[in-house]
Amino acid sequence: MNLQQQLEWRYATKRMTGEKVSPEKIQHILSAIRFSPSAKGFQPFKVLVIEDPQLRSTIRPVANNQAQVEECSHLLVFTAWTSISKDHIDEYIRFVHRERNMPQDALLHLGGMLEKELLVMTGEQFTAWASKQIYLALGIGLIAAVENEVDATPMEGFDPAALDELLGLEEQGLKSVVLMALGYRDITNDWNLKLKKIRRPADELFIKL
Amino acid sequence: MNLQQQLEWRYATKRMTGEKVSPEKIQHILSAIRFSPSAKGFQPFKVLVIEDPQLRSTIRPVANNQAQVEECSHLLVFTAWTSISKDHIDEYIRFVHRERNMPQDALLHLGGMLEKELLVMTGEQFTAWASKQIYLALGIGLIAAVENEVDATPMEGFDPAALDELLGLEEQGLKSVVLMALGYRDITNDWNLKLKKIRRPADELFIKL
Repeated sequence: MNLQQQLEWRYATKRMTGEKVSPEKIQHILSAIRFSPSAKGFQPFKVLVIEDPQLRSTIRPVANNQAQVEECSHLLVFTAWTSISKDHIDEYIRFVHRERNMPQDALLHLGGMLEKELLVMTGEQFTAWASKQIYLALGIGLIAAVENEVDATPMEGFDPAALDELLGLEEQGLKSVVLMALGYRDITNDWNLKLKKIRRPADELFIKL
Repeated sequence: MNLQQQLEWRYATKRMTGEKVSPEKIQHILSAIRFSPSAKGFQPFKVLVIEDPQLRSTIRPVANNQAQVEECSHLLVFTAWTSISKDHIDEYIRFVHRERNMPQDALLHLGGMLEKELLVMTGEQFTAWASKQIYLALGIGLIAAVENEVDATPMEGFDPAALDELLGLEEQGLKSVVLMALGYRDITNDWNLKLKKIRRPADELFIKL
């Protein structure tokens, strides 16, 4: 399938069969998330990869009781860092230094730029910025799932405060942003599979200049 | 190329050759953006597709003077709606009604849900939500570019207020969120091509439960 066919094959899967996605496929999807572009290469997020069925059962009630939380194989919880400090930036610069043979002044320039742009943000602004990077990676992770013929349902319908509490995210400096259920569509019971995919017409979305 | 190879082939292209991307390829990339998943199918954004070289020259100074603004073939300006009203929702529901053979009560349910979730948002919250949908589509548009062997540079380095002013976006109820330059890498002059792609290690990004 080319990308257009992949986009048409996928849909927001609401009912899944419970069939497990293989570790190799999960690995492929996580790798795509890891290799997704991220502004300044900073990747200010963590993804919880939840296979444990008991934990997913506990999450279901705080996720609008959606069936795919239990019927999926793995539930990804994308979380953003809740704050940013000079220490985070210094650590990142050391990482860049280890990985890349960059001259000291280029590293200093990168560090200065990150400090100037990120340290002025409030916690809320920083989480908003991190959330955008997460959605970029979410889109690419979703394509990775489709490439493996795995169904993937991005989910905003959950109570972030309740989920953060349940998973102890605040103590880890994290905040839940969006979920993605990975599994296999239940073609018999998924009402959403039967609905036509609709998109706004191109002339409403694009302005050519 | 599979997706992993596509992610490794791409990089944030800082210098481009000026070569034009064909209308067919642009069409393919825009179609992927249009078919990207969007929460509730709502797609609260517009994308300006700027080919006009004069306009791109005017934009360059408000985009940190980055060369790829002029050296690209097309500059995409992703803009979010700045506000949401009951009229927008009613119009969307009429659109869904025309496209899908949905029973009246399912439409009423969808409309009610959209009103409940979206009309309580402040303008700022709504733009933040729309921005996340934009980044999802940005990631998928970027993969569409790579599939066509087109270089794509997502860009946050610009002055949104100045760009909004320059493009008259406020009057159109829009706000610039992120840019993407489409074109072809200048392998001689692009210093960024020579730098190793670095990503945080998997055990730093993922928590398995």
